[in-house]
Amino acid sequence: MAQAAKKASYTLAQVSTQEKNQALTTMAAALRAKTDYLLAQNQKDLKAAVKQKYPKALVDRLTLNEKRIQEMAQGIEDIIKLPDPVGQIFQTIERPNGLKIQKVRVPIGVVGIIYESRPNVASDCAGLCLKSGNAVILKGGKEALYSNEAIFKVLRDSLSGTKVPAEAIQMVPSTREAVNVLLKLDKYIDLIVPRGGESLINFVVEHSRIPVVKHDKGICHTYVSEYADLNMAHKICFNAKVQRPGVCNAMETMLVHKDAAIRFLPGMIADFQKAGVEIRGCPMTRRIVKKGVKPVTQKDWETEYLDLILSVKVVDSFKEAVDHINTYGSHHSDAIVTDDQKEGEEFLKAIDSACLYVNASTRFTDGYQFGLGGEIGISTNKLHARGPMALEELTTYKFVVHGQGQVRE
Amino acid sequence: MAQAAKKASYTLAQVSTQEKNQALTTMAAALRAKTDYLLAQNQKDLKAAVKQKYPKALVDRLTLNEKRIQEMAQGIEDIIKLPDPVGQIFQTIERPNGLKIQKVRVPIGVVGIIYESRPNVASDCAGLCLKSGNAVILKGGKEALYSNEAIFKVLRDSLSGTKVPAEAIQMVPSTREAVNVLLKLDKYIDLIVPRGGESLINFVVEHSRIPVVKHDKGICHTYVSEYADLNMAHKICFNAKVQRPGVCNAMETMLVHKDAAIRFLPGMIADFQKAGVEIRGCPMTRRIVKKGVKPVTQKDWETEYLDLILSVKVVDSFKEAVDHINTYGSHHSDAIVTDDQKEGEEFLKAIDSACLYVNASTRFTDGYQFGLGGEIGISTNKLHARGPMALEELTTYKFVVHGQGQVRE
Repeated sequence: MAQAAKKASYTLAQVSTQEKNQALTTMAAALRAKTDYLLAQNQKDLKAAVKQKYPKALVDRLTLNEKRIQEMAQGIEDIIKLPDPVGQIFQTIERPNGLKIQKVRVPIGVVGIIYESRPNVASDCAGLCLKSGNAVILKGGKEALYSNEAIFKVLRDSLSGTKVPAEAIQMVPSTREAVNVLLKLDKYIDLIVPRGGESLINFVVEHSRIPVVKHDKGICHTYVSEYADLNMAHKICFNAKVQRPGVCNAMETMLVHKDAAIRFLPGMIADFQKAGVEIRGCPMTRRIVKKGVKPVTQKDWETEYLDLILSVKVVDSFKEAVDHINTYGSHHSDAIVTDDQKEGEEFLKAIDSACLYVNASTRFTDGYQFGLGGEIGISTNKLHARGPMALEELTTYKFVVHGQGQVRE
Repeated sequence: MAQAAKKASYTLAQVSTQEKNQALTTMAAALRAKTDYLLAQNQKDLKAAVKQKYPKALVDRLTLNEKRIQEMAQGIEDIIKLPDPVGQIFQTIERPNGLKIQKVRVPIGVVGIIYESRPNVASDCAGLCLKSGNAVILKGGKEALYSNEAIFKVLRDSLSGTKVPAEAIQMVPSTREAVNVLLKLDKYIDLIVPRGGESLINFVVEHSRIPVVKHDKGICHTYVSEYADLNMAHKICFNAKVQRPGVCNAMETMLVHKDAAIRFLPGMIADFQKAGVEIRGCPMTRRIVKKGVKPVTQKDWETEYLDLILSVKVVDSFKEAVDHINTYGSHHSDAIVTDDQKEGEEFLKAIDSACLYVNASTRFTDGYQFGLGGEIGISTNKLHARGPMALEELTTYKFVVHGQGQVRE
């Protein structure tokens, strides 16, 4: 399977943008046309899930309905409109000996996506991979067995009659042994993207011989400076925590400069508590707000709650805030609220995270919100791709050299 | 040590270009000033090497002399002149909601270099890492123990009094156990660059939890098309094989289209044989040149000789050449000689290698030859960096977002 994908990737690398877009159009149309079949297969997974008493949130993520299938098709159609990164020349060097050296964007080759529960991941990822000229090997969770196979079959069958080889989409059986085999095939697979919980990601990182771009946890901070517009800080912190607490770019820790704490914390914490947020505060926080603030522990600073819980710390200085974020953060997304432009710039330099904000909510870390037109995930790697990862991040480059017979002296 | 390097990397990330250049100037001056000390320490390694009866080539690589130390200092001074990639803004996105999103180049953080024999690797790599704002952890081979420690001491001592923290250069004891520990420290080290033989690289890839950029073998090809200027092909192939056969960008396999073979091979092979090159040919090659051509085996196609040995194959078509290179090559550097521009462009697209040439020798794959001003190695990875790897490839990016209080709806 991996060998066939590799072979298909060489063909796909040379397929034109127009031909790739035609294939994507066909794929989207096939999803719409086969809605009944997809829903019927999804029912099988849902029945099994209910029987196995899976948690409600998981059953919800598993569920396909007409609207979700329309959205899957629309998602692929949106990818058609995005510019094709393949073939872009982004650096040209002319050498004194006449050699012309160019860096040209090319597909990575074969991308393995290992994902859990949500069946729409298959179509999103297949769309982004094919548009960027990559073959894709999908490996979904066993709880979505029938749904995944149905989506795969529809997408793959739709490719016959297009210029994209059908072997450019593959699906692997949903067993952990299959993953183990997959992760050793570094001769055929060029990149592994795990999408799921911490245990899946750790397993993949531990066992893979293939480069992995992780989409790991987000322990995101907002630092309210003594130079902050405190109304703005209030709005930003509330949004970062409450608007959607279960996602990686939600705030988990709020840091407040000591000179802003007395003015800021009472109103802020009261509003958080009204919204059902549990507050875990440092001793100074608990001195300022007496009611309903639990003591924070060391472990809290390192925890991604993904829930309506917030840890709060009053810091003595900008430097203490920076050190806290670099020490306990997950280098995902962090924000400062300040009206001091110089302090803002220092924050952007001093913090080692994928996405940094001055005066905005960390919730914007997202391929669509950043205007990338899509996303295969949000990378917490420092290498290859960092932060929201879309089409360009699914490419690499080659050096292409034009000569007239030059040899090395 | 790794923790201290990480901490130093945060400071170093904010040191200005001018301050980094001052530190590099001091480092180069220290190497020149301490020449006698370096030579004396090197003598200890050389004595041990002679005692242990190390091969002559290894002893040569180990040897420091006044000229080599001058070159090490000059190497660092050359790095001063290169542009600093840190802080470059290479993409700006303005969103309808007023968010301004920029991709900014930043240092990777802490880079671990694991290298063998040649002591000058320490100064080359330290110079490139510091200029690009990275802390560096060096781990040399035990055969160069005294030399490595001496270079390390001189470089590190020279940093006191500069704005670059001395902890930004570290050196690890020369034992394999130390490497094993190092390769697990993914919390503190961001990138491992192994420089050495196949066994070192395999060990590192197998055991590292940290991303590795490999500098692996080069099985490089030159394809002589039926549309080639055969005089040019002769010169290019001779250069690619003979000018320096022991390096990764030398040619190991020559492919010749059947319609050029009879005109091209007899003269070419005669000249190779005069230069002492052993030829291993396919049946058709042996039919055309009867004298002194050994039969080639399957294993030859997969072998990096690093020596005056060449395998030769006559192919029926462009496609056969492409398939051979993609199947047996190491995706390092490959060339076509052709006067058909369209064929040249097809070759550049169809071959999946880091560096591809039309009408030039593969021997140009090198950071200096490409005008990058230096190189930390030649990456055979597809991710993060590919081909010659210099300052820019020692950086990553962050997304920096400026807002005026935006929150997510």
